[in-house]
Formats: sequence, structure tokens, C-alpha cells
Amino acid sequence: QAISLAVIPGDGIGPEVIAEAVKVLQAATATEAAKFELTEYKLGAEHWLASGETLSDETLAKLRTHDAILFGAVGAAPGDTRIPSGLIEREMLLKLRFSLDHYINLRPAKLFPGVPSPLADPGEIDFVVVREGTEGPYVGNGGALRVDTPYEIATEVSVNTAHGVERVVRDAFRRAQARRRKLTLVHKHNVLVHAGHLWRRTVEAVGQEFPDVAVDYLHIDAATIFMVTDPSRFDVIVTDNLFGDILTDLAAAVTGGIGLAASGNINMDRTVPSMFEPVHGSAPDIAGQQKADPTAAILSVALMLEHLGLPEAATRVQEAVEKDIAGRGTAARTTSEVGDAIASL
Amino acid sequence: QAISLAVIPGDGIGPEVIAEAVKVLQAATATEAAKFELTEYKLGAEHWLASGETLSDETLAKLRTHDAILFGAVGAAPGDTRIPSGLIEREMLLKLRFSLDHYINLRPAKLFPGVPSPLADPGEIDFVVVREGTEGPYVGNGGALRVDTPYEIATEVSVNTAHGVERVVRDAFRRAQARRRKLTLVHKHNVLVHAGHLWRRTVEAVGQEFPDVAVDYLHIDAATIFMVTDPSRFDVIVTDNLFGDILTDLAAAVTGGIGLAASGNINMDRTVPSMFEPVHGSAPDIAGQQKADPTAAILSVALMLEHLGLPEAATRVQEAVEKDIAGRGTAARTTSEVGDAIASL
Ligand SMILES: CC(C)[C@H](C(=O)O)[C@@H](O)C(=O)O
Ligand SMILES: CC(C)[C@H](C(=O)O)[C@@H](O)C(=O)O
Repeated sequence: QAISLAVIPGDGIGPEVIAEAVKVLQAATATEAAKFELTEYKLGAEHWLASGETLSDETLAKLRTHDAILFGAVGAAPGDTRIPSGLIEREMLLKLRFSLDHYINLRPAKLFPGVPSPLADPGEIDFVVVREGTEGPYVGNGGALRVDTPYEIATEVSVNTAHGVERVVRDAFRRAQARRRKLTLVHKHNVLVHAGHLWRRTVEAVGQEFPDVAVDYLHIDAATIFMVTDPSRFDVIVTDNLFGDILTDLAAAVTGGIGLAASGNINMDRTVPSMFEPVHGSAPDIAGQQKADPTAAILSVALMLEHLGLPEAATRVQEAVEKDIAGRGTAARTTSEVGDAIASL
Repeated sequence: QAISLAVIPGDGIGPEVIAEAVKVLQAATATEAAKFELTEYKLGAEHWLASGETLSDETLAKLRTHDAILFGAVGAAPGDTRIPSGLIEREMLLKLRFSLDHYINLRPAKLFPGVPSPLADPGEIDFVVVREGTEGPYVGNGGALRVDTPYEIATEVSVNTAHGVERVVRDAFRRAQARRRKLTLVHKHNVLVHAGHLWRRTVEAVGQEFPDVAVDYLHIDAATIFMVTDPSRFDVIVTDNLFGDILTDLAAAVTGGIGLAASGNINMDRTVPSMFEPVHGSAPDIAGQQKADPTAAILSVALMLEHLGLPEAATRVQEAVEKDIAGRGTAARTTSEVGDAIASL
């Protein structure tokens, strides 16, 4: 049977890293019964400039028919004034996450042997952040009054529901159970009382179903401290959309940078395609120069294979990456050299 | 003329560190014409248990009459179920910041020579975070519907006004002008569009008055990356209440820990007392054991002296702390030994 994969290379370094990710995908699944059928979609800042489309209902309907989506990166160069700031991020990337109800934004953080960390004494770092993906301050539920006057008021509303919180918390407990059985809820319930207490009560309630998982709580501010002083303490972190955004960039930094950070935007109900993307952006400054590290995109392929029920292929990708990383010297390699190396391991 | 100082030692290690801060204050101002008159206020979790008062209108009215407030730390032990979680923090600490309109939450981050950083290659770190103190997601403007049912909805509203943003942005520009002339706005305007654009437009507009200050922008997620990979890039950071809370704990961590992090809750209009407090909490686990480092409280005294127009006394405290830190060995000292040492330098 064929697995139908939508590929969205996007802008900047997106196409370069996705080319290598596809190369590794093909190598790792060559011996699998299931074959991948790829369909490329042009979307992103360049596409918007050329066509005026951010993400049309028609394109979204087509994307829905696939089994999964492999996503590169989107976004214009910071100085490019032709593109309203944040437009593509919201109307395309976030629109995809919200329309496809990607309620789990899965972001592993692992310090691979041989990778330099900015921390003096990083210890063993191996945790996953289960970031909520469809609620919180990301819902676009803000507004402004008397804009550009001395009386302007701008609001942003964080929306959190029992439905939304419970499903991501249960998923995080499941993942913790399959790992080192420790779950850390990160929030700020001493200040964000209503949202915070919903999260807290939900973790307590769902935790009854997982008596073998130890539960811990940290305020987001304290969590950033531990991220640099004791990251080994984390196994699975569950947190809201915005705190997860912040923590996962920091986690990527302490584990060697966003060149290695993979992510999955996942709907566990499997009625819609989940989407896999490197955490990094389109990096227009180095685009087209074969300078980008495709490892994050390749590790996102491993997450995708796992999600699609091909754990052996996932392990092949993961192990090839770890082998390649362990042998990395200081000599610079091109994007495709890294892809070739990993594909051949 | 006498300077009237309210002292709120608070809970846990608060009284211990405040005792040393007062000791150093007295030593550093012994030769000043202005004398300090101290009035102690019992407030915090212990006081609430004993009296039922978090912060009454009467106490608040008395506090208003002082020239400044020196604050230790408040908060119950995490396991203490007699005290509703976050109650003291909100009804006392945040109530003070909001009632006294402490719109500038000033938090310097400096890596002193001799202090170990968790970063392998920290470089020179010396910046200040100007955190907004009276708006954002801290306004308590959330709510919940259908609590404890599968249909619960909990919201948190971030409120941002032109008035509130402009005054803190202007203050940050002034501080940048007196330092290395670089201002970094940290927000997340690609997602939090309305609040983010108010901040952005305000920085652009106020920046016209400060043509000699270079302006930079970072999303909060990217800012946490730079905090561990290149903290030297920062001079003055201006940001909202929640992002500032997160960034300053991280900044404290990379500069040697919250044992050294001072802060001021400042109203520059000087019609109400400003409040100076260490960033750390009440640390009930080590309370009463003379184990707490009073340096953060002592550095908060330096910020207070600066704010009160006693720059020479502020410098004396700052220099005594730097001297003491440079000579710190590995031998543990008691809280009062550290205070004695700094007071005598
Ligand atoms: C581009 C942006 C909207 C996005 C986010 O905030 O989620 C990015 O930072 C991420 O973490 O994937
Ligand atoms: C105790 C808490 C309410 C407070 C805050 O969030 O502002 C603290 O974390 C701080 O940074 O001073």
C-alpha cells in the first residue's frame, strides 16, 4: 500500500533541507513494503508574492487527503517590506496547525554524543516537550481599540478548554509511561490563575490513570532556570502553546542548536494528516548556499515514520543521524553532503 | 533630612537576607547627610496565617507614606496546604506592584568576575531588563466557565495600553542612552499581533527621540536562545510583564543564579514609594539556617540608593559586593558572615 505524503519545502533554506530529508526518507524506507508517494505543494512567502495565496481552502482540502505532511520552513527575509510581518506564519503555518487540529506539538530535546552544548556541564539531556498546539495565546483572539492614539488598548486572549488540555495531558502521560515515567507540568498558575488551574486539575485528574508516572510542577520562569542548570531532570514536559514555544527554543539551544531540533504537529486521532517540520525558520541569510544543516529536517522524518507506524524505519533514520553526528569533525560540509552521508549510513 | 524606609522582611529566608541588606545599607550611608528611618511591616504567608491579612487598605495607606520599600520574599512552603497557592503572591506582592503603579520592573544581569556561570563560554554579560510591571497577562483579567466539567473554558487576558507601554519604553531608551546605547525589544508580534504591534510602534515612535540608540527586535523564543549562546549582545532589553518574568529568571541563571539577582519595582514619577527586592523567593527549605546568600538583597539596596538619589552610596554597595564576590572561595559562609564581609568593605 502507498503512503501519500505532501511535501511543502517553503522558503529560504526550506527547499534545501527538505531535499535531504526526502533523500533520507527514501533510503530508510527502501526495504519497507509501504512506498511513499510524494506530492509537492508550493506555499510560503515566495508563493504569496507570486500568487497572493497564503493557504486557500482549496489547497487545504487537498492537503487533508494526504497521510502526512513534511514541511520545510516559511517566512520572508526580515527586511522584506513587501510581506506584512508574521502574515505567512499566521495565515499559513498556524492556519495549518489549527485547521488540522494538530493538538500535539511534539519536540524532543536530546544532546547527542559529540554535539557541543553551550552549557559547561550539560550532563545527559534527553527529554520531550509535549506542547499544546491549538489553544492558549495562539488562538488569535485579541483586539485593539483606538489604535495609534494615546488611548490605545490592545488585548490578547489565551483560551484554554478542558477538551484541549485533557487530550494533550493524556498524550504526555502516555509518552512519559513509555519513557522514564516522569512528567513535568510547566505553567504559571500563581499568576495565570484560571488557565493555570485548569492545567493543574487536569494533570491531577488524568494522573490517576497513570499511577506509575511521577508528576512535577514548575513555573515557566523556574523551568528556564533548570533548563540551563539541570536539564537532566526532565523526561516529559507538558505545557501550553506559548510556554512550549519558548521552552523548546531554549531546549534546542542547550542541546546544540536549532540545526538539530525536530518537531511534529500531531493529531493522534489520525483522521487528518500530521505535519513534521524542523523547529528552525527559513534563515534567508544563508538560503541557496548549501550552508544549512538538514539534520533537523531529517530527524523530523524519523518522528514522521514513528507516527506512521514504521518504527524500524524511524530507528534507521535516528541511528544514522546519531552515527553521522558522532563522526562530525570541524570541517564544513554542504547541506547535500550531510544528507548523502546520513542516507548512506 | 530623614529618608523613611518601609522594610518588609516577609517569609522564609526573607528576614535573614533583609537583616544583612539593612546592615550594608547602614554601613554604606553612615557618612551621608541623609539618615534612614526604618519601619518594619509584618506581611506574607506567616502573617496571613496569624492574622488573615494579605495586604489591607490600611497597611497599603501606611506603606504609601514612605520614601521607599525594601522587600525580602514572601510565600509559603510548596507543600503547605493551609495557604491557597499563589494567594500571597497575588494579593500582596502583585497588589503592591499594581497599587503603587510600579511600571518599571528593573532587573540588571551582570556576570561578576569570579562567579561561575552554567555557560561554557559566557563572555562579558552586563545588561538590564526593563520589564513592564503593571500590565500584560498579569492584570488578573481572566475567567473560567463550567469549571470542573468537560466543557470548561478558562481565559487569561493580556491588557496593554499606549500609556503603559510608552512610559516603560521611554524609560528603557533613557537607560540605554546612559549605557551602551542598544535597546532590544522582546515580544512575539508574529503571533500576539495586537499587543505586539502596539509595542513595536511605540518603540519606533519613541525611538525618534533617541537617534543615538540602536534598536533591535527579537521574538521571545529567539531571545532565550541568545541568552545562552550570546548574552553579550544585550545592553537594555525592554519587554512585557510575562516575557520579562521569564527572561529575567533565565538571565539570573546564566549570570550565576538568583542568589545574586536584584530588582527594583519602580515608579519614576516618585509620587509613591518604589520597592526593591531580590528576584529569589522565600526558599522555605533553607529558611532559618543561615544558608541563604544575601547578595541579591544587598544589590537591591544599591538599586534603591541609586533611585533615591544617593549614587555614591549605591556605588559603595556595588563595589563592596564586587570585591566580596571576587574573593569568594569555596568555603561556605553563613548569611550574616556574607553581610558582615560586604558591610566592612
Ligand atoms: C513561526 C512561529 C509562528 C512558530 C510558533 O510560534 O509556533 C515558531 O516559533 C515555532 O516554534 O514553530
Ligand atoms: C512571585 C511571582 C508572582 C513573581 C512574578 O511572576 O512576577 C516572581 O516570579 C517575580 O519574578 O518577581
